[in-house]
Amino acid sequence: MTARAATAPVPAGAPARGVWAAPGGRRVRGVIHASRRARLAGTLREHDAAAALVTRPVNVRYLTGLNSSNAAVLVTATGEAAVATDSRYIETAEAVCAGVEVIEDRDVAGVLLARVPGAARVAVEADHMPVGLFQRLSGAHPGLALTPAGGLVEAVRTVKDEEEIAALRRACAITDEAFSLVVERIAPGVTERQVARWLEAAMVELGADKPAFDSIVASGPNGSIPHHSPSDRPIERGDLVTMDFGARYDGYHADMTRTVAVGPPAPWQRDLYDLVRQAQRAGRHAVRPGATAHEVDAAARGVIAEAGYAERFGHGLGHGVGLEIHELPFLGPARTGRLEDRVPITVEPGVYLPGRGGVRIEDTLVTRGDGPELLTLTTKELLVL
Amino acid sequence: MTARAATAPVPAGAPARGVWAAPGGRRVRGVIHASRRARLAGTLREHDAAAALVTRPVNVRYLTGLNSSNAAVLVTATGEAAVATDSRYIETAEAVCAGVEVIEDRDVAGVLLARVPGAARVAVEADHMPVGLFQRLSGAHPGLALTPAGGLVEAVRTVKDEEEIAALRRACAITDEAFSLVVERIAPGVTERQVARWLEAAMVELGADKPAFDSIVASGPNGSIPHHSPSDRPIERGDLVTMDFGARYDGYHADMTRTVAVGPPAPWQRDLYDLVRQAQRAGRHAVRPGATAHEVDAAARGVIAEAGYAERFGHGLGHGVGLEIHELPFLGPARTGRLEDRVPITVEPGVYLPGRGGVRIEDTLVTRGDGPELLTLTTKELLVL
Repeated sequence: MTARAATAPVPAGAPARGVWAAPGGRRVRGVIHASRRARLAGTLREHDAAAALVTRPVNVRYLTGLNSSNAAVLVTATGEAAVATDSRYIETAEAVCAGVEVIEDRDVAGVLLARVPGAARVAVEADHMPVGLFQRLSGAHPGLALTPAGGLVEAVRTVKDEEEIAALRRACAITDEAFSLVVERIAPGVTERQVARWLEAAMVELGADKPAFDSIVASGPNGSIPHHSPSDRPIERGDLVTMDFGARYDGYHADMTRTVAVGPPAPWQRDLYDLVRQAQRAGRHAVRPGATAHEVDAAARGVIAEAGYAERFGHGLGHGVGLEIHELPFLGPARTGRLEDRVPITVEPGVYLPGRGGVRIEDTLVTRGDGPELLTLTTKELLVL
Repeated sequence: MTARAATAPVPAGAPARGVWAAPGGRRVRGVIHASRRARLAGTLREHDAAAALVTRPVNVRYLTGLNSSNAAVLVTATGEAAVATDSRYIETAEAVCAGVEVIEDRDVAGVLLARVPGAARVAVEADHMPVGLFQRLSGAHPGLALTPAGGLVEAVRTVKDEEEIAALRRACAITDEAFSLVVERIAPGVTERQVARWLEAAMVELGADKPAFDSIVASGPNGSIPHHSPSDRPIERGDLVTMDFGARYDGYHADMTRTVAVGPPAPWQRDLYDLVRQAQRAGRHAVRPGATAHEVDAAARGVIAEAGYAERFGHGLGHGVGLEIHELPFLGPARTGRLEDRVPITVEPGVYLPGRGGVRIEDTLVTRGDGPELLTLTTKELLVL
């Protein structure tokens, strides 16, 4: 794959690419991106900033539609915007970025800061901009006060528009369908790694961009490791098998976990499964606009604690999903903030018993005023294969 | 997929994972990582630093073997090291990191800086550490002089050890084999997207971790766009089809491009192919320890310029590959520095004719004193399908 261009070209007349030819086309997409930029602009007052310089690729994509490894966008508090990218992406940028000035320059951040008049405060992404670049830009633009701000665009991204939810819905449907295709092939002797490959191949075959993250397949005792990497361990009769995976579709990430039994489950396995299922249901039922992050967590965690397994559920209950697999908001005992409407989020309690195995059940759902919309529709009945 | 742990657990007795059970096992790997840390320690004098704090995940992996999204390693100029990670990764870290103190803490950078005695200068990664973290750490450790340094570990990573080259060799072999399986299926009516999916599925089936990057498949006029995303365009008789793809194996990235003809090529297509092949050969022959980055580039670029297509070859000639798909060194007209021994690098000239199509031919090879070792072995004869 070619690296950053050494000289100028890239041919004229590059066609709009697959994703940009999607329903609605450029004009509608342009309206969506403009409304996202307007929401960002509306938050700049809190940061006491005249403009925001956004360089994190996923955030540039969110604000402009441009998917590039080297691009930046400047959004002023009055809602004006300009985007800069290098020669490799300039044709795409011109095709995609409606209502935004497009500038070609390799120094994407520098060229945009040069446009800021006078002595202004410009917010930059505290959790993304490398300190080396920050120091270089501050030195080159002594009139500007570059101010690191955390979660500048990520906070705006928390509440999704319906176009984003539609992409997530499709990502989750692909995930469900891949599960249903692969679960029939799971049997004693099949390895964790094979199951992971089957899931990933099925998702891509069904139209996913790619897997949303490295799939987790954990069988038997490996089930006690929440982030187990699929190994060459053959699945055995009597195992519980936890699969945590998802599809990425049009940039949006699905996330689902199911635990199945291979052969009739032992009583402890069935009890553990029922407990986690009950906790997961309690968590889902607590998801609503206005709920706090820790009370949703507590709804599920309380069920597990009640059963004496508090110490065996060591991670948070869930997290937002969207253009990233982990994004705001996070659900956990120490998490603050309230859920808003139209926030996609996972609910994924688990109980992990060292040396024995574990169970995790996870859905992706969306907060709605009239009750959460479930996006991953695979049954949560215990499947006995 | 679970997000960062909210509380403590992760079970005891987690088994060593696939990659760590690889040939040689932990002890040999430990020696390799120690020698890499020693090379980093040897460079700290240039930075006038008593220690380096490394937080970029790929660099932490390189120096310790730990593959984690939240870990840091401190390496002192005397070669001592400590690694910190959170509860999700602590079992793996203890299993994997030989000869290194392992500390559990969510604030991985802060806990390591607290270990540095007195008023020392500590180098941090200028191109990776976010400015927000830099400011927080500087405030919390006023006695230390945190100093951003560019390419701190990346420079050390340029020259590979034989274990790394072996992983790349395997990644390239998988890439070759996937090409040979998929090329038989390319015919008029097949879409670019289908070819990309076949290549990616074949690589995973053959043992790749995953594709090394999003595959490029560009047919007919799309071939003039170096980074074309595979579309639903059906391949037609008379097309040139450029495929730029590769496998990732054990974390190491292969990179290969081939252009094939579907049906008998027109004279201009054959001429263009022959030109690029000749340029690619000239580039490969210029690869040797001691050559400068721009003279290798010029060897290939000169052939293309001589034919009058200088303006139609708009990117650099190649780039290093390893734990990343694009890493040091880069080959281009404005690139400086000399190649050393045991540096894996791509050679990938291309000529792009807007509206008509293009040709790119790329290999991954390794500098050796007795002539480069070619890792991608697929023929560069023009295949007519």
